[in-house]
Order: sequence, then structure tokens, then C-alpha cells
Amino acid sequence: MHDLNPVLTIEGLLQFLAESFPQIRFGDANSPLVEPVDIEIISISSKRCKVRLPFHSRNLRPGGTISGPAMFTLADVGIYLVILAHIGPVGLAVTTNMNINFLNRPEPQALLADCEILKLGKRLAIGEARLYGETDGVLVAQASGTYSIPPKPMNPR
Amino acid sequence: MHDLNPVLTIEGLLQFLAESFPQIRFGDANSPLVEPVDIEIISISSKRCKVRLPFHSRNLRPGGTISGPAMFTLADVGIYLVILAHIGPVGLAVTTNMNINFLNRPEPQALLADCEILKLGKRLAIGEARLYGETDGVLVAQASGTYSIPPKPMNPR
Amino acid sequence: MHDLNPVLTIEGLLQFLAESFPQIRFGDANSPLVEPVDIEIISISSKRCKVRLPFHSRNLRPGGTISGPAMFTLADVGIYLVILAHIGPVGLAVTTNMNINFLNRPEPQALLADCEILKLGKRLAIGEARLYGETDGVLVAQASGTYSIPPKPMNPR
Amino acid sequence: MHDLNPVLTIEGLLQFLAESFPQIRFGDANSPLVEPVDIEIISISSKRCKVRLPFHSRNLRPGGTISGPAMFTLADVGIYLVILAHIGPVGLAVTTNMNINFLNRPEPQALLADCEILKLGKRLAIGEARLYGETDGVLVAQASGTYSIPPKPMNPR
Repeated sequence: MHDLNPVLTIEGLLQFLAESFPQIRFGDANSPLVEPVDIEIISISSKRCKVRLPFHSRNLRPGGTISGPAMFTLADVGIYLVILAHIGPVGLAVTTNMNINFLNRPEPQALLADCEILKLGKRLAIGEARLYGETDGVLVAQASGTYSIPPKPMNPR
Repeated sequence: MHDLNPVLTIEGLLQFLAESFPQIRFGDANSPLVEPVDIEIISISSKRCKVRLPFHSRNLRPGGTISGPAMFTLADVGIYLVILAHIGPVGLAVTTNMNINFLNRPEPQALLADCEILKLGKRLAIGEARLYGETDGVLVAQASGTYSIPPKPMNPR
Repeated sequence: MHDLNPVLTIEGLLQFLAESFPQIRFGDANSPLVEPVDIEIISISSKRCKVRLPFHSRNLRPGGTISGPAMFTLADVGIYLVILAHIGPVGLAVTTNMNINFLNRPEPQALLADCEILKLGKRLAIGEARLYGETDGVLVAQASGTYSIPPKPMNPR
Repeated sequence: MHDLNPVLTIEGLLQFLAESFPQIRFGDANSPLVEPVDIEIISISSKRCKVRLPFHSRNLRPGGTISGPAMFTLADVGIYLVILAHIGPVGLAVTTNMNINFLNRPEPQALLADCEILKLGKRLAIGEARLYGETDGVLVAQASGTYSIPPKPMNPR
């Protein structure tokens, strides 16, 4: 892999996201299906990052479990962020494939996702996310995703 | 496959959903990450159903395209509904795996999903969904999912 | 999609494959795990091709069913070939992701695969394959795959 | 998960496989597409096993890389074996879904697969495999699979 260490800090990531997604207020609960809202970046390290989905009643399904789309969003955003942290603010990677296994119904609680880069090529990146309950530690979902990395511009700004 | 024809009508489906998910008001835009909100059932036929995601600005991403989680939700709910329409109101199937390919960025518009049962076993069902723009007809995503079907109760109520 | 019609015929495909894979004799049953051996191209049309896996006892599993890896190979080769038929002999596409659902255990028989291009971009192509028994017509597997398309050379030969 | 420790040893696994697949001689190179031929069980521990694909020229593709189907087989067999080691010789689990990401083209060498159970339910098990070169340690593929576990017989033999 061409980069084993992140080139962006959490602050750098948040700044890039704020510039790239100006219409989204991060942490704003008012537009939930427009991710990456409401997802917190906990840590970034070599090939890895950890993100967190706070507990909100609107992410619940009947029975008190957290919805599949909320878990999909957490995995997708987490893998996107760990890739972005390692390629830097050169453009927007696009999800082209996501495979998610739902393992156990989560109890109502915040979820954490450990995200890992499996491959970081010039044109494609592939990562994995494992989601588990913040309180009980139970593994609730595993996902892997493919992201297309845009070409570097010939004449960068 | 043990059932080639639906056993529930759209009305029967909606009634079952209303009884099973009493805390959700279908068509209510106030709790978007709790699906199956805001998804319309267009038609049900042998092994197939068609569902529709109306255009809402809250499903948009920067650039005006519709978000990945919104497409994931449409595919997941659509496959769930075509299975439910064919097994009847015997219990809740649970998504255990979903694989989604994002093919083209959709223009801002309503999306339709053609959903098809690929396998309907006693314990597992597998279905596919193809999502396309209602206005331009462009194929935007393809998904396949595995659903675990709960055992029939020995002493049904 | 930038090409809706194939640019290679079956004969053109076979000639390219023979030049690109000189150490493989197509149709030779002696090196089975080295695909695309023993797979016949039945037809090519717009965005589609049909391929066939002849029945061989070595593809069988206990119980007389055809092995998962044999079905994986048929799907992978079929999607690869339909892409190659539409992009022409410009280089070798590489499988980066394959998702396969095993639907029904096939009876011992030849298998056919209907393969379809879902997306044909400059850098990525995504296709689907549906496998069914030649004799009984039963759908036995469904697969979707992502292929990375090599860049066109600056100075083409 | 209902079992955190294996209930079968390598010897117990091999004995069960020999009884269940009498027509296959394990380690026999003569019927390569009929797995689980030629795959060695290296170790079994809690929720994990390690398997090995020896280097054979027949698993090669043009350019000297190991074929996709050979990697698919290693992942499928490895996840199958770790599940079997934990549920015991009660019947044959069936692969219903396999998702595989091809990360890097392997150099010609033996491959190892670290396999892990992600979920072990009564009816479904889900596992992951990570494949890497025995010599260079490079991660070459990551796969996750769903397996249907047959019901326990009412009157076991």
C-alpha cells in the first residue's frame, strides 16, 4: 500500500469535510439520511480509524434494535473516512460496492466501528468495518466496501 | 420455490406493517432513518414487486445526487416486502446479508426499484433489487440480499 | 454506458484469449483450476453474453451436485468475457470483487450463465451472471462482480 | 455465540471429512475443482482456524499469479472448516453467500488463510477469511461467507 500512515488528522478531516459538504452541519440531527451526519471520529492511526454512532431514538427499529440503514451508514462513512485520512484531501472517493453482514441485533446503545484499509491503490481502495455495541461490546455487523479514487488532477489548484 | 404467487395484496401488506410497526407512521417524513418510512408500494406480482422512493431534499448528497443509505434502504425494504408478500404475515424476516453495487450517480428525482425473489426456501430467502431513476430510467444501483425467515410457530396464535 | 454493442465477436474473443493466455489450451480439461478452461461462449449481444459449463464429473461434489468453485468460475469468466467483448482487446480487466449467492443445488448437468453488463465505465465495469441448469432450467446461482479496467496506453500499438 | 471453543480437533475434522466425502482423497491432486482437495489444516482454536493452499502450477494464471477460483476455494473451505470444528459432525453446512475482495495479485507461493467465525447461530453461521502469501506475507484477498446449518435431527443416530 502506498501510504501506511494517515496524512490527515481528525481536525484536518473535519475541515475538509466542512469545505466539501458546506450544506451539511456535522453533528446536526436535522437531516439524518444525509450522512455523514452525527458520526463522530474517535481516532485515526495507521490504516485504521474508529468512528461512533451516538444513540438516537430515530435510529431505532421496532423491538428497540438499531436500523440496518443506520449501521450501513456508519460502516460506509467509517471506511470512507479512513481512506480519506490516508489519501489526503485530493478529491472525493465514491463507494462502488458495499457488502454488509448483519450478525446480531444490537441492543439500544451507541455503536462503534473499527475501520481498516485492506487495499489502497491508485484507483481503488478496499476497506473493512466491524461494528459493535459501545456498552456490551457485542459484534453486530461486518462490512467491506470498494471505493473508486478520482484521478489526481493534471494541474492541481 | 414453494410459493410462486403473492399471498398478500398491497393493502394486506400495509395492514400487516401497521400492526407490526405500530410506532411508525408510514409516509411520515419525521423519522427518516427508521425505514420503511416514505417508501411506496407500486405493484406486486409473481416473485416481483415495485417500490418507489419519492424525491426529498433530505435524501440528497452534495452535488444533488441521492445518498447511498437512501438507496440501500430502498433496496432492503423492497426485497423485504416482496418476500413478505409471498410468505404471508407469519413473522418478521431479518436481513442477514446485503450486497449493493452503486452504478451511476442518480440525478435528483424519485427512484423506482424492481425487486425479485431469487430463492424462497423455508429458512432463507434471497432477492435482488435494481434501482433506476423514475424520470430518466438510468440504472443507478443493483443489490442482492439474504433474509432469514423465522420458524413457523408450533401453536400459531 | 459508453458502448452498448459488442466490439468483438466470439471468434475475436477466442483469438484474443489465445494470444493473451498462450499457455492455456482452451477446452483442455487438464488444468481445471486454471480458468477459463472448458467454458464455451454461446452468444454475444448488446450488453450480454451466454456461456456454458459442460458437465464433467470432476466438477461434482458429494451428492452429485456441482461444486461452488466451478459455479464461481463460470460466473467470473462469463462476466469477464461480456466486458471484454464490449471494451475490445485493449488489456486485461481484473476482478476486484465478486459476490455470489448459491440458490439451489444443481442436479448433475451442464450449466448456462446469462451474463449482463450493469455498468461500463472507463475504469470500472460491473456485471451480473445468473446460472441455471441446461436441462431443468432451475436457477442455481446469482453473482455480481466488479472489474478494474486498465488504463488505455498513451501510445497504443 | 453458543460455542466459543472448537469441539473437533484436526484429526476429528479429517475423520469426519473422510466419512462424509468418501470419493475424495484429501491431498489428492487429481480432481482440483472438487474441493476441499489439497488444502491443509494448520491449526484450530477458539473461533479461528488457519488453512494452507500449497503452491501448484495448476493454480497459476498467466503472469504467474494464483487464480481467483483457487483463492475462492481456499476461503470457502477455510470458513466451512472453522464452522464445522465448532458445531461438530452433525451435518453439512451449505454456503449460501460468498463475497470476496481481490486485493493484490499474489506472487507464486503457498497461500495461508486466517479464518474466523463472526456469528454462530442455530441456523446460520457467518465467517471471514483473510488470505496472504506464506513467503511474503502480503494480504491478497478478504472474503466473508454465509452458511446454512442443517437442523439437528430429532432422533440422532
